[in-house]
Amino acid sequence: MRILVVNVNTTDSITQAIAQQARSVAAPGTEIIGLTPYFGAESVEGNFESYLAAIAVMDRVLAYDQPYDAVIQAGYGEHGREGLQELLNVPVVDITDAAASTAMFLGHAYSVVTTLDRTVPLIEDRLRLSGLDQRCASVRASGLAVLELEEDPARAVEAIVRQAELAVTQDKAEVICLGCGGMAGLDEQIRQRTGVPVVDGVTAAVTIAEALVRQGLSTSKVRTYATPRPKRVVGWPMRQGR
Amino acid sequence: MRILVVNVNTTDSITQAIAQQARSVAAPGTEIIGLTPYFGAESVEGNFESYLAAIAVMDRVLAYDQPYDAVIQAGYGEHGREGLQELLNVPVVDITDAAASTAMFLGHAYSVVTTLDRTVPLIEDRLRLSGLDQRCASVRASGLAVLELEEDPARAVEAIVRQAELAVTQDKAEVICLGCGGMAGLDEQIRQRTGVPVVDGVTAAVTIAEALVRQGLSTSKVRTYATPRPKRVVGWPMRQGR
Amino acid sequence: MRILVVNVNTTDSITQAIAQQARSVAAPGTEIIGLTPYFGAESVEGNFESYLAAIAVMDRVLAYDQPYDAVIQAGYGEHGREGLQELLNVPVVDITDAAASTAMFLGHAYSVVTTLDRTVPLIEDRLRLSGLDQRCASVRASGLAVLELEEDPARAVEAIVRQAELAVTQDKAEVICLGCGGMAGLDEQIRQRTGVPVVDGVTAAVTIAEALVRQGLSTSKVRTYATPRPKRVVGWPMRQGR
Amino acid sequence: MRILVVNVNTTDSITQAIAQQARSVAAPGTEIIGLTPYFGAESVEGNFESYLAAIAVMDRVLAYDQPYDAVIQAGYGEHGREGLQELLNVPVVDITDAAASTAMFLGHAYSVVTTLDRTVPLIEDRLRLSGLDQRCASVRASGLAVLELEEDPARAVEAIVRQAELAVTQDKAEVICLGCGGMAGLDEQIRQRTGVPVVDGVTAAVTIAEALVRQGLSTSKVRTYATPRPKRVVGWPMRQGR
Amino acid sequence: MRILVVNVNTTDSITQAIAQQARSVAAPGTEIIGLTPYFGAESVEGNFESYLAAIAVMDRVLAYDQPYDAVIQAGYGEHGREGLQELLNVPVVDITDAAASTAMFLGHAYSVVTTLDRTVPLIEDRLRLSGLDQRCASVRASGLAVLELEEDPARAVEAIVRQAELAVTQDKAEVICLGCGGMAGLDEQIRQRTGVPVVDGVTAAVTIAEALVRQGLSTSKVRTYATPRPKRVVGWPMRQGR
Amino acid sequence: MRILVVNVNTTDSITQAIAQQARSVAAPGTEIIGLTPYFGAESVEGNFESYLAAIAVMDRVLAYDQPYDAVIQAGYGEHGREGLQELLNVPVVDITDAAASTAMFLGHAYSVVTTLDRTVPLIEDRLRLSGLDQRCASVRASGLAVLELEEDPARAVEAIVRQAELAVTQDKAEVICLGCGGMAGLDEQIRQRTGVPVVDGVTAAVTIAEALVRQGLSTSKVRTYATPRPKRVVGWPMRQGR
Repeated sequence: MRILVVNVNTTDSITQAIAQQARSVAAPGTEIIGLTPYFGAESVEGNFESYLAAIAVMDRVLAYDQPYDAVIQAGYGEHGREGLQELLNVPVVDITDAAASTAMFLGHAYSVVTTLDRTVPLIEDRLRLSGLDQRCASVRASGLAVLELEEDPARAVEAIVRQAELAVTQDKAEVICLGCGGMAGLDEQIRQRTGVPVVDGVTAAVTIAEALVRQGLSTSKVRTYATPRPKRVVGWPMRQGR
Repeated sequence: MRILVVNVNTTDSITQAIAQQARSVAAPGTEIIGLTPYFGAESVEGNFESYLAAIAVMDRVLAYDQPYDAVIQAGYGEHGREGLQELLNVPVVDITDAAASTAMFLGHAYSVVTTLDRTVPLIEDRLRLSGLDQRCASVRASGLAVLELEEDPARAVEAIVRQAELAVTQDKAEVICLGCGGMAGLDEQIRQRTGVPVVDGVTAAVTIAEALVRQGLSTSKVRTYATPRPKRVVGWPMRQGR
Repeated sequence: MRILVVNVNTTDSITQAIAQQARSVAAPGTEIIGLTPYFGAESVEGNFESYLAAIAVMDRVLAYDQPYDAVIQAGYGEHGREGLQELLNVPVVDITDAAASTAMFLGHAYSVVTTLDRTVPLIEDRLRLSGLDQRCASVRASGLAVLELEEDPARAVEAIVRQAELAVTQDKAEVICLGCGGMAGLDEQIRQRTGVPVVDGVTAAVTIAEALVRQGLSTSKVRTYATPRPKRVVGWPMRQGR
Repeated sequence: MRILVVNVNTTDSITQAIAQQARSVAAPGTEIIGLTPYFGAESVEGNFESYLAAIAVMDRVLAYDQPYDAVIQAGYGEHGREGLQELLNVPVVDITDAAASTAMFLGHAYSVVTTLDRTVPLIEDRLRLSGLDQRCASVRASGLAVLELEEDPARAVEAIVRQAELAVTQDKAEVICLGCGGMAGLDEQIRQRTGVPVVDGVTAAVTIAEALVRQGLSTSKVRTYATPRPKRVVGWPMRQGR
Repeated sequence: MRILVVNVNTTDSITQAIAQQARSVAAPGTEIIGLTPYFGAESVEGNFESYLAAIAVMDRVLAYDQPYDAVIQAGYGEHGREGLQELLNVPVVDITDAAASTAMFLGHAYSVVTTLDRTVPLIEDRLRLSGLDQRCASVRASGLAVLELEEDPARAVEAIVRQAELAVTQDKAEVICLGCGGMAGLDEQIRQRTGVPVVDGVTAAVTIAEALVRQGLSTSKVRTYATPRPKRVVGWPMRQGR
Repeated sequence: MRILVVNVNTTDSITQAIAQQARSVAAPGTEIIGLTPYFGAESVEGNFESYLAAIAVMDRVLAYDQPYDAVIQAGYGEHGREGLQELLNVPVVDITDAAASTAMFLGHAYSVVTTLDRTVPLIEDRLRLSGLDQRCASVRASGLAVLELEEDPARAVEAIVRQAELAVTQDKAEVICLGCGGMAGLDEQIRQRTGVPVVDGVTAAVTIAEALVRQGLSTSKVRTYATPRPKRVVGWPMRQGR
């Protein structure tokens, strides 16, 4: 089985970290292919960047010319999943949904700890649209930008732990979701520090993608995610312009 | 006052129709500029096309090099408004929100009549995110594609009236919103046929944009719609690649 | 165009302030008529007074014997709008709805800052009924009574700013609505102090009423707001009893 | 124990029917006093009439000069209960709430069958405000006006049974609430015809009022229903004008 | 009228206290029978114990061989009510629902003060299922275990008052529900200390059960609570195994 | 990895079918152990039977004396999962949640097709508690009892297909969940007949249980599902009484 794990930003080192995290949980026989979009922001922390990432991810996946069995969109709270679902016949798993869905098997309520405060409403909105917000106790910001996570992992752990503890004690969360693809690999440390299960969206998404493939399940094509109607589209794929 | 009214698809005749509709209600002294995106689909009827439109609209607005006071995104149920709100300092009004917001002043519940069934969930999702869905009785599809509206307006009126009547009698709607920018100009006929107020999103949006400007109000920049952080963005504006 | 702006209490100086605020934003050619009810409380700060105001406003509007194009009910969180909508054929705009509806075009979430704590649930209830509460971050009380606002505007500004700042920092509001007709004219100062858009319900309502009239839209008469059935009504209009 | 049962309209025969219905379930030692407002509509079937009833009921209760232990507002879906709660220290029970609250002890979902279609949204709104709408399967109109119920009870039973059956089979209601004070006395026939429990709001309210009194419980005065602040009120009580 | 009041745990002294509380409000002619389950936990403070109590209560009621008119399940936030409703033809009242339903007649919002933090989610879930959570401001834990309430009532009152005061001042509750059958008899002291109405679930349930019986109302048998279908059940009643 | 798959009823042939279905998707190295409760109903179709099953499942799992890594409760819409989560340290997956959670990755809305109409509210309630109901278009009954599914699979397929088609065309479901453990093995036929993805709760649960184990995740023990406090429990395990 081959799973494409697509980063939402154009920073290759993050793609590598995400792919490595994905491989850490992949079943024997599952091949993980990490993909970096050809265009977009070096980190995605807002709506403009996220919308740009939406089409950059679609563009990158369509440009991949080998067979694959599932696609993981590895951005937390980002736009675009529905477009991929229309364009592809294989299952598409967004790490925001994957983490929330997994967390709900582990506790009565979960919280997300993410990067900057400005990304909190994006995550809240995506969870609302996905219908996975009913047991979300809170989405909290660590105050660290995406690229800062990589620069100083120790500081990142501290900032995340601080918010995770507040989520548990004040918001009554029983599970923590790491709300950024760039937090890949920090779950174990944070679990030890907080004493509650910590869900990493990337590993959650890998297991869900594998599960869907093994069950022979993929996106329903009867209505919302039907293949786009044939029509004149100007300027797509955009990479033709490069 | 100058208001940009941006079409979400690349069909110029629709841009003209929308701009004409906008001018029909604009106050004296308001100049309406109709803009067609440089790339994207000839009609937008699904998520892929809508996401592409999202950035195409942002791209087109940023390419406009004259001063302006407000922007109207003239696509019903489309993605992207939040990105524009981040990028701009002037008010941004989406016609989906404008129509719903206006309808709520006119009756206890409203329905939207749109084009194809596949676009219904997009509109429902946008209304949910905007928090304007509580009094939405239904979103109904006329079964006509966007470009068919233009080709045969008489048939379009019949199809829309049929669904509007069902919305009133079965779903208990008291107001109808025309759920497609391409329906501009049909409101009066449908009002006469159904006996309930019919809201056109484009005219609603023009009056709301003017109202915001006259009150000196614009997008809040403290959190969700703060200006994007300075960072390396590759391949944007995309039109540089053309 | 002539718009009636009806105060909900019997204090003439407040009617004057509201009418002046309305005129500050009215389009050229819009005439604002301020009306004070013939009976009711000098200030409205609770359910009994608000219910009394509901009929006093209807009574006052019906007693107005010149033509008019729209009616604004200038009380925040008060009862009665639905009755006016039944009795009249012109559009009716409540300032609570007008402010919320306007705020939702400006930010992801808004808060209302009102007078006394006891009026908070009234406002929350009206927003819930109007279906405009989904993006309401909070309704906060300044602790000042309606008549105190007039007596000491400087103190009022301080008290409102304090709650507005808490709304922004703690409740994550991005826009503030001034939750009392008697706060007319304070918006600019509070905007400067808090850095977020501040919506005044009276000016918002004027622009919305004008917009509805310009679009030829008025209350739907098919169900909820149909004209009252002809029947024997004793003791109405009440002013006949005076 | 003395309980005031206040009609919302000015038709004495309905007051008598309601009072008789109340007495049929009242405990030994409970005295039922039926009151008719001094002003208002002969039947209440809309917002204007309902708002007028709101103050007419308050006016009538305040005019009652003997001691009493509780007040029942015997109108279905009407405005005003909150005002009574502010003005009085004894418990106030609205029959809309009483019926819904009782029905929820009897089945998984309940429906209300009322008079005219135009009153349906009023009932829905009152249930929403009361927080008793979550298990409401539907509010259905029999199509009969309030005064028609009295004129032809047999026809009324047929019309109500028809809607009750649809509520059970289509809307999955397991309990029916009779949605009009004027339906007093029809419950037994409708129960026999539909096979599901039928709740009469008046009898439900009497038992709840008695229950509150026996438990020594009354309206909380700490916030929403605090006694009105002392202030100048012009034209109240309105009956002084007569 | 005979009402069975069934304790959910196997501690007889609690059964006695509950029965005594029930008798304090019962109408003349109402006989209260306190029942203790034959199996289960000495106190119920979690899901395992609560599920065990669910069938222990059913078992105990079925073992009661005298006629009775209604059953009260005297556990706060416990499982099982729906099973009793299926098995019996007489009304079943759960004290969680009874308290919430009563509180909603007394104030705009209510809070529950219960025992341990771990029982809070159980109560929240039961209120959600009952559709009585819309006006629940909060469920707060006093930190005392069920059996500690009995051992040191003075300390219990202090701990409950502390949380009740926070519920009123911070959560804006206007009424307090005592969230444990074992708090029977403490209501008056807490009412005096907090100044808001305090609802005891047991007394509330007695008056509601009496009210249903007097109105001739019982559980609807058309769907959710239809009598179990005849089938082979192994190991039930479990007490046969004793 | 060893996973216990526990039937909720006492019919061994159903346990065998469920276990076989589980094995059909289990990863290499996963051992599936099918368990039948020692007591309870031969089929579970209502609350009494479901509550009995809740403790019977707990009893059966505790009686299993070999090591295991996860537990699947194979009843659709049944009580008890929370109790297992308290008692065990390994992950617990309910097939109702597993199916819903899986379906949400495949389409915008899903429906459940179950057995008898009386079980519909149980499933709706469990989905509401699990917070997985937001995108549930409907729960529909095929009209077949659990044991009838086994007796005549061809008739079962017809009845399920009929409801599945209505779910897709009328309720706008895009995915169907098979709402009964006894429907194991019918998914492929129904998928072919309806053209939409069909989710089997048992296979979904197996993949989710495996995923949790592989990620080292288990139930959070900080609050709702903390291990029961040590206390005197009479009559448990109940099988001691046999």
